[in-house]
Amino acid sequence: MDDVDTARDAPPGAAYEFDRAVAVDRTAPEIWRAEIDPGWNIGDAPNGGYLASIAVSALRRVSPHPHPFAVSTHFPSRARPGPADVRTEVIRIGRTQTMAEARLFQSDEIRLVLTATFGDLGSLDGPTVVSGTAPAIPPPEQCVKAEGGIAPEFVKRFDLRLTPETAMWAVGQPTGEARMEGWIAFADGRPADPHGLVVMCDAFPPTVFNVLRSRSWVPTIEYTVHVRRMPEDGWKQCRFTTRYLIDGYLEEDGEVWDTDGRLVALSRQLARVLTPEGGP
Amino acid sequence: MDDVDTARDAPPGAAYEFDRAVAVDRTAPEIWRAEIDPGWNIGDAPNGGYLASIAVSALRRVSPHPHPFAVSTHFPSRARPGPADVRTEVIRIGRTQTMAEARLFQSDEIRLVLTATFGDLGSLDGPTVVSGTAPAIPPPEQCVKAEGGIAPEFVKRFDLRLTPETAMWAVGQPTGEARMEGWIAFADGRPADPHGLVVMCDAFPPTVFNVLRSRSWVPTIEYTVHVRRMPEDGWKQCRFTTRYLIDGYLEEDGEVWDTDGRLVALSRQLARVLTPEGGP
Repeated sequence: MDDVDTARDAPPGAAYEFDRAVAVDRTAPEIWRAEIDPGWNIGDAPNGGYLASIAVSALRRVSPHPHPFAVSTHFPSRARPGPADVRTEVIRIGRTQTMAEARLFQSDEIRLVLTATFGDLGSLDGPTVVSGTAPAIPPPEQCVKAEGGIAPEFVKRFDLRLTPETAMWAVGQPTGEARMEGWIAFADGRPADPHGLVVMCDAFPPTVFNVLRSRSWVPTIEYTVHVRRMPEDGWKQCRFTTRYLIDGYLEEDGEVWDTDGRLVALSRQLARVLTPEGGP
Repeated sequence: MDDVDTARDAPPGAAYEFDRAVAVDRTAPEIWRAEIDPGWNIGDAPNGGYLASIAVSALRRVSPHPHPFAVSTHFPSRARPGPADVRTEVIRIGRTQTMAEARLFQSDEIRLVLTATFGDLGSLDGPTVVSGTAPAIPPPEQCVKAEGGIAPEFVKRFDLRLTPETAMWAVGQPTGEARMEGWIAFADGRPADPHGLVVMCDAFPPTVFNVLRSRSWVPTIEYTVHVRRMPEDGWKQCRFTTRYLIDGYLEEDGEVWDTDGRLVALSRQLARVLTPEGGP
């Protein structure tokens, strides 16, 4: 285990803000200290994909297989910025995959339970049959950059461009279709590796902002990311859709492609719409 | 905890075979003895949705909230029929939800790690906006019943009817599109409650049988089910699709509707195609 950890230690003074914000320090054999950075907040609460990325950060230190293939996260209570402890457990190391779990605590309150299967995206071998395609959307320079006064602090960590069509909710004209599309990159140019995809799949505005009032709060109950290919550098094209908002609960399905239209990740979350000011 | 357990004890001599096959007996405060029934095998291995249902069976005994809203399962090693122990852990009981975990062991080998958020489908309250629809398919009596010599033992637990189109792989004429559609009910008439949906979402033949040789083995790596509505009695209409089979790894996305076209569950799994006899 120590070999694995040594090999993967985050470089001191990591060059990119994502790596600094998800950095963990070992304080005991399976306990890691993290600092939840308020720069990744939506309102008062840290983004769920960011919290999952902290847990993945700790698991990367203990898994002999490098890449998160499937990451499942449940959020039993609401986290807040500040110190946190991550407890890791390697459940089974197999020939091609490692299964492991991480739990994130703040003052003994459990915030997150993440189970993951790690593998090596460089070693995959088998048939390929693809029918899904990246939709034709305007290039990043013709999309609408999410920024300015109303954007959550979290959004500033990215260069996030919504298609003009799906951005209209921001000016009070929701499309009526629960979909967000566009492009994303880390604001400071960090490459979108498998770890980065875990936060990117939770980075777009909620799909339901195009069918409900955008002031709703949409906390995540369960969040799964499947990383399917090693991403290349550059913009990631994203589409998030919701087909079933039922009694306040919704799925949000994400697809992420490289700029050449190759799928790199699929995500799904179960979330809940909370409209503190009354009905939608 | 004991109150919860007492209230939910499975009736002795449960009327339906699913309930008997997922029954668990408490042997210690958080340990449950199960018997993995070979009647739910695909070849030599128990079906993954069946194994997840055993774990859910134990969690139902400890969760004050009755229904599995979101169930995430990883399969670190391959189970076999016979005795198993399930260790449950209630992670957090909230006002509207309980988060809990179950692990299934055989002879100290861990087979399954399941994390779940339970709630009460009868208490949901919020907006509904639905754009997904159940596709028009032939009624069950015009579909093809999966049975006979080549069907796995597992399939006999259901009345499973594939649409004539998506059943053609079984006579050597795969459609070339990774999709399975049709109807399902428990063979003995058991109602499809939220617990039953956890196995039904893994019950259809692999989608890739319509694009690859049907002798492939398609073990599940990660499996998530979201139960979205209390199902009504009667046939469930199902659609399973795969858009991205990449280097032998695929997602299988499931939708389950009541007979009146109301969505009751969504599922997704990451699986791997193994073709023991060579390439596809």
